[in-house]
Amino acid sequence: MEVEKLRIKLKQEKIAAYIIPTSDPHKSEYISEYWKIREWLTGFSGSAGTAVVTASHTGVWTDSRYFIQAEKQLKSPFILHKMKTRAPEYIDWLLDHLAVGDCVGIDERLFSTTEVEILNRTLTIKQINVLSVGDLFREMWHNRPQLVCNPVYTHPTEFVGIVTSEKIAQVRVYLKEKKVSHYLVTVLDEIAWLLNIRGSDVAYNPFVTSYCLVNELETILFINEKQVSENVMVELGRSNIKILPYTEIMRFLQNLQSTSTILLDKNTLNFQLFSSIPSQCKIVSEPSIITKFKAIKTPKEIALYKETQIRDGVAMCNFLQWLENEVQNRKVTELEAAAKSAFFRQQQPNYVDLSFEPISAYQQNAALPHYSPTEEHQSVLEPKGMYLIDSGAQYLGGTTDITRTVALGAVTQEQIIDFTLVLKGHIRLANACFPVGTKGIHLDTLARLDLWKQGKDYGHGTGHGIGYFLGVHEGPHGFSQATAGASMVPFEAGMLVTNEPGVYHEHKYGIRIENVMVCQPADFGTDGSFLCFETISYCPIDRKLIDRNMLTMQEIEWINIYHLKVRELLTENLEGEVTDWLIKNTNPLR
Amino acid sequence: MEVEKLRIKLKQEKIAAYIIPTSDPHKSEYISEYWKIREWLTGFSGSAGTAVVTASHTGVWTDSRYFIQAEKQLKSPFILHKMKTRAPEYIDWLLDHLAVGDCVGIDERLFSTTEVEILNRTLTIKQINVLSVGDLFREMWHNRPQLVCNPVYTHPTEFVGIVTSEKIAQVRVYLKEKKVSHYLVTVLDEIAWLLNIRGSDVAYNPFVTSYCLVNELETILFINEKQVSENVMVELGRSNIKILPYTEIMRFLQNLQSTSTILLDKNTLNFQLFSSIPSQCKIVSEPSIITKFKAIKTPKEIALYKETQIRDGVAMCNFLQWLENEVQNRKVTELEAAAKSAFFRQQQPNYVDLSFEPISAYQQNAALPHYSPTEEHQSVLEPKGMYLIDSGAQYLGGTTDITRTVALGAVTQEQIIDFTLVLKGHIRLANACFPVGTKGIHLDTLARLDLWKQGKDYGHGTGHGIGYFLGVHEGPHGFSQATAGASMVPFEAGMLVTNEPGVYHEHKYGIRIENVMVCQPADFGTDGSFLCFETISYCPIDRKLIDRNMLTMQEIEWINIYHLKVRELLTENLEGEVTDWLIKNTNPLR
Repeated sequence: MEVEKLRIKLKQEKIAAYIIPTSDPHKSEYISEYWKIREWLTGFSGSAGTAVVTASHTGVWTDSRYFIQAEKQLKSPFILHKMKTRAPEYIDWLLDHLAVGDCVGIDERLFSTTEVEILNRTLTIKQINVLSVGDLFREMWHNRPQLVCNPVYTHPTEFVGIVTSEKIAQVRVYLKEKKVSHYLVTVLDEIAWLLNIRGSDVAYNPFVTSYCLVNELETILFINEKQVSENVMVELGRSNIKILPYTEIMRFLQNLQSTSTILLDKNTLNFQLFSSIPSQCKIVSEPSIITKFKAIKTPKEIALYKETQIRDGVAMCNFLQWLENEVQNRKVTELEAAAKSAFFRQQQPNYVDLSFEPISAYQQNAALPHYSPTEEHQSVLEPKGMYLIDSGAQYLGGTTDITRTVALGAVTQEQIIDFTLVLKGHIRLANACFPVGTKGIHLDTLARLDLWKQGKDYGHGTGHGIGYFLGVHEGPHGFSQATAGASMVPFEAGMLVTNEPGVYHEHKYGIRIENVMVCQPADFGTDGSFLCFETISYCPIDRKLIDRNMLTMQEIEWINIYHLKVRELLTENLEGEVTDWLIKNTNPLR
Repeated sequence: MEVEKLRIKLKQEKIAAYIIPTSDPHKSEYISEYWKIREWLTGFSGSAGTAVVTASHTGVWTDSRYFIQAEKQLKSPFILHKMKTRAPEYIDWLLDHLAVGDCVGIDERLFSTTEVEILNRTLTIKQINVLSVGDLFREMWHNRPQLVCNPVYTHPTEFVGIVTSEKIAQVRVYLKEKKVSHYLVTVLDEIAWLLNIRGSDVAYNPFVTSYCLVNELETILFINEKQVSENVMVELGRSNIKILPYTEIMRFLQNLQSTSTILLDKNTLNFQLFSSIPSQCKIVSEPSIITKFKAIKTPKEIALYKETQIRDGVAMCNFLQWLENEVQNRKVTELEAAAKSAFFRQQQPNYVDLSFEPISAYQQNAALPHYSPTEEHQSVLEPKGMYLIDSGAQYLGGTTDITRTVALGAVTQEQIIDFTLVLKGHIRLANACFPVGTKGIHLDTLARLDLWKQGKDYGHGTGHGIGYFLGVHEGPHGFSQATAGASMVPFEAGMLVTNEPGVYHEHKYGIRIENVMVCQPADFGTDGSFLCFETISYCPIDRKLIDRNMLTMQEIEWINIYHLKVRELLTENLEGEVTDWLIKNTNPLR
């Protein structure tokens, strides 16, 4: 039905194919309902995938994480193309199936400048042109969700690491160094960081839908003015931030003087904005400097973050104790457990939102690293086997993300061995000490070493950066085996990173242990040439799943010291049975 | 004197600068005396450095390994430019100091095509041209060493892993896949591997100065015909190898049909040859496929290589036992010790040559990883402290490279701790087990982890590939922290690699423990999806330098099993006191 209407549009626009990516104009990781065009059109709701419609073909390309889900969900006439890599393989398909001289249409807001460059570079072999034709579904999508425009607020001063004027000054020093006149910021968490503003336009992400432009004299925030109250307007004015309507950004760019030099990141800047910049302007494209600035948490942020983590640990203990009790007496569903974990977090001070949809997975469901229970498809927890919960929240004092795998009753020897192998890797990484310049790729192996010795491994990276009341996934650094991206960025003191090795046995069970760590100078040597990590998630690691005989003395010591610290930090915030539970679960291994 | 003559040449050639690199027409790691132009001109004998002469400047650029040596050796008027990185920083100097429109002269045989491209790309900013002006020292260098032209011989069949015709067939299959008509091989160890020929034109390297071209029907070896005896000619003829004079290669390339597609590697192909290829020919440049072919040793080669390593281990035991005795009774110089280690190797069957100049370093001299004693500057060994010897040889059955650090008498607690830390790293790497696809960068950290925990590190990679009676350093793989080059190449079964962590304290001492390992499928799981290493250098690791209390049970087990194996393999080839010495030095740690 929609496909037929779309094909009429293709004819009108004289394009042979229309590409429907999963994106928004800010290249956000989480996109709002309004932008879930691919899901609406194809039925497939995974977080990654690209649809292509031609006169004779309707295909969806997605990667191995989503093959099963896509096959279930895709509506006729869409067919699944299983991607071998994470590269945009649909481009090769277009090259093979379109005719010389054909045109391909895109909504120029939903592609990064780099993506369009790659499209052009590949398709030019067959003289295929890429045309900006905008959103072809505007008229045909009835009941399309509205673009959410929730009120903006400023991050309360007591939680702010660096005041706005100082952040802007810091950026301007960099602009001067780079000899650029303008800095165009389009990624939402970067704008939220720079201006110390927050919002709730998209679930789990406290960002504000906006663009920002900084030059020597001005900082301009392009935003739907309905979202900005009088008070916030005044506050922003104090930091000399000028407000213009969201849609004004294009005209503003079009009117830039031809002598301007614009700093931007083609990997995230959407092609519509890039095309608006006069061709005479000089472009300097590089990974956004704010990514690095915001990754290095200030001492104040780290101190507040540790308090936040204590509160998050309290919620986790309340939840795990509740769960342990409850499953002895009655059936608990995965969704109920997830909701309960959220409930305990909501009780904590400075709670704002969850930071992602909890992964609440019983037994074999945990074998899917990104499992999400639904009302239709979920398991009921029983007092046996293992349960995995990966969850976190947005607090005014930081963003959390923690995974615990716990025994709800009898477990197998195999499960205990695997849990202990994962734990050994977790500890080796947590204990790492390394010279300045060391990157995630150099450290990722530490978490896998013991699993590898048994011929086991896990198919995801070992950790990601995390925001300070911003995104739960944050660059530029991270742990993985990949030879490009976050794993190639050196660690610096002040960076937060998760440590989350796991192991997954299809149809059987899954294990993951995740804590957040902060990178800091190592104790010895006062010259700061070595760095190490401090683990700052506080929640017991299930001792019932640990085979003590597989651990070295140092590993046992690490667990005992960690558990002692958890006990010390959490006890005063716990009550009654939960305190007993904490004591029991933080007793030293001997 | 030479500089004045050179400056007259600059005027004649109308060039503002002449660049004198350290290179030969084959981009060899070791260059023959004939090509040591930079050393002759400047006095500096280090293995890396580039001289630049202009009308007013005479500079030599080298990296931090050679600062002290260069400052000592450089003759007036040459001055040292200390390089910050390994990048060709002299190019920036040229850009800063030459005038717009100037010309820079090079000997086009001594620059790779890539190097010339980089020169051009950078200097074009100032419209500076790079001119091929050949060797400007031809007439002025009296007593220049002759180009050595020693006889070529074929690798005896009983030692050959794959017969020549089969290797050529393997290459032709690849040429067909890549749809190229010609494959130009110019790196000497690749030609030696492909044609199973060896020579002795350059010390330590059993290569033959030649070029090789393979097409669908022919294999042509361009070589000084004086080097090829009637017998060898006949043998090569049996594998259908045609011989043409070395200097004919240029004319041959010039006459290639314009429809030809040439596979070559711009990173190693000298610019003179590249320029000889008609511009209509299609060029496919990529890392030479032979690099990969020869890195994967065949089962026969591995079996013979293990026998070779036993013989090398015998030589090492004879040497270490001799040394231990000798230093008790009299003064032994570093050079004498080095010569004695060579002597014991020469006694072994199938010995051909050393594989590099031994590093024979007592006490603080070992703090320089690339130390070489000379008659003028060397130490005398005494029955105290530590001695390091890094040495190896060329045998018909493979190339060896081993380092041992031994106590000649009393050592400090600090030295024992450092030795044990290095040993722990060595063992962790030797014990590694990893999925197919794992690269050196993923494993290098394993050897550093314990040192890092003490704030220590070493400034070199942890290991390199090694040849089968070829180069002692061989690509494409290796262990290092670098994010480019050998560390980014996945390991494959059949690869040989050294495992040589160390630690160096300037003015005090240096420690390194080096064994060769072979990569092979891991035992568990029959699907070959995991790999591991087997250590195949056989020589005791000095138990006097090990602090047993710093080792885990697994580490102690590794040493005991290793020493047991060394004892088993070597005993029957040792005599009298050396057997006793071996027994004593391979007794288990308890």
